[in-house]
Amino acid sequence: MEKQLKADVRGLLGRLPMFAAVDGEALDRIAASVTEHRLARGDVLFRQNSPCTGFYVVVHGQMKLAVTAPNGNEKVLEIIPAHMSFGEAVMFLGRPFPVTAEALTDSLILGVPRDPVQDLIDSDKLFARKMLAGLSLRLHSLVKDVEGYALRSSTQRLIGYLLREAGDDAAGPVEIDLPTSKQVLASRLSVTPETFSRILHNLSADGLVEVDGKTIRVANLARLRDHEA
Amino acid sequence: MEKQLKADVRGLLGRLPMFAAVDGEALDRIAASVTEHRLARGDVLFRQNSPCTGFYVVVHGQMKLAVTAPNGNEKVLEIIPAHMSFGEAVMFLGRPFPVTAEALTDSLILGVPRDPVQDLIDSDKLFARKMLAGLSLRLHSLVKDVEGYALRSSTQRLIGYLLREAGDDAAGPVEIDLPTSKQVLASRLSVTPETFSRILHNLSADGLVEVDGKTIRVANLARLRDHEA
Repeated sequence: MEKQLKADVRGLLGRLPMFAAVDGEALDRIAASVTEHRLARGDVLFRQNSPCTGFYVVVHGQMKLAVTAPNGNEKVLEIIPAHMSFGEAVMFLGRPFPVTAEALTDSLILGVPRDPVQDLIDSDKLFARKMLAGLSLRLHSLVKDVEGYALRSSTQRLIGYLLREAGDDAAGPVEIDLPTSKQVLASRLSVTPETFSRILHNLSADGLVEVDGKTIRVANLARLRDHEA
Repeated sequence: MEKQLKADVRGLLGRLPMFAAVDGEALDRIAASVTEHRLARGDVLFRQNSPCTGFYVVVHGQMKLAVTAPNGNEKVLEIIPAHMSFGEAVMFLGRPFPVTAEALTDSLILGVPRDPVQDLIDSDKLFARKMLAGLSLRLHSLVKDVEGYALRSSTQRLIGYLLREAGDDAAGPVEIDLPTSKQVLASRLSVTPETFSRILHNLSADGLVEVDGKTIRVANLARLRDHEA
């Protein structure tokens, strides 16, 4: 392995959620055992049903994880970009790979063998806890991201509803009387009543709407139209 | 604890990513030790800097995790909805809680004490691996969700660009000559060149555009306008 890459291996491993809370010595032991795989576009790293003796990290390039149905059709399950790992759940469960991994572009992949990771889990009680902590933290931040996206599109749906009710040409100010209970309207917009209330609260805090019982006042329709566009 | 809730506790725990791959006997041991907390809106479950002896799961309601700055301002870091856990990373790291947890609505919370989880990690080698596998699997599915959202909004940006270039009134068919390299355009739209190519590929597979070098043909602008709306 080239010097440059060797120096980067620890950095790459340390940025994986699994190892983010793990200390340097443990990472050094794992880094010392990684293997390097240079793939051209179309090269297969492992095939569906082959045994799993470790997991992989994309240094650069993109890997496609796909299954082949009995009729020969391929279904792409995941595309793994640079700096992400794959195969770790399968490794921990001790199962064969359920997918085929193929390079979508020229790619450099690190292989992290199971044994040193397993040895550390068995010998160092803190190691497993730190891996669990790192994964939990990343999971929370991803849930927040997904929630942010979902809230943003719910907000867009609610704004879309208000604009339709106001009439497309109006500039405001307008008053919109909700024709039904907030509960029913929330369900029509495919949001929970809690999300519906939170969105109205946020829009009102941003000065975009004024909520008065079942009446919603919009001072400036153009501003509402531009919001979250 | 009421009978009904007791029956649900195992189901709730089993749906947490951390325990999704864990087997029934281990879950039974953990479920037997959970505590129940009924909170009214505004009630505090734990305060910033208090010791952490376990983590929590929201059965119903919503919990707010917030920090208070020295000037007294509150910053909300996370809102935990029903069926989600919080505090697990802090528990694994053995640190005090970095946030205050307050009920946003009337809430029912389960407390999962650290000790039975810790005992299982120490006594059963497979237990930690199964927790790591469950968290890794959930993480992959969340990354896919986030990527899906991100790709969707990149697609919206690219469509917006094409519509602006086509002129708002046109109905199509139109030919749009990219004024610059795809690389530069990708960067202007804040996507990676790989994502840019993937979006053009998807739009072309959906029959919305035809890509011919630097020329993009759109047969039906209205269809493009409606796509991903």
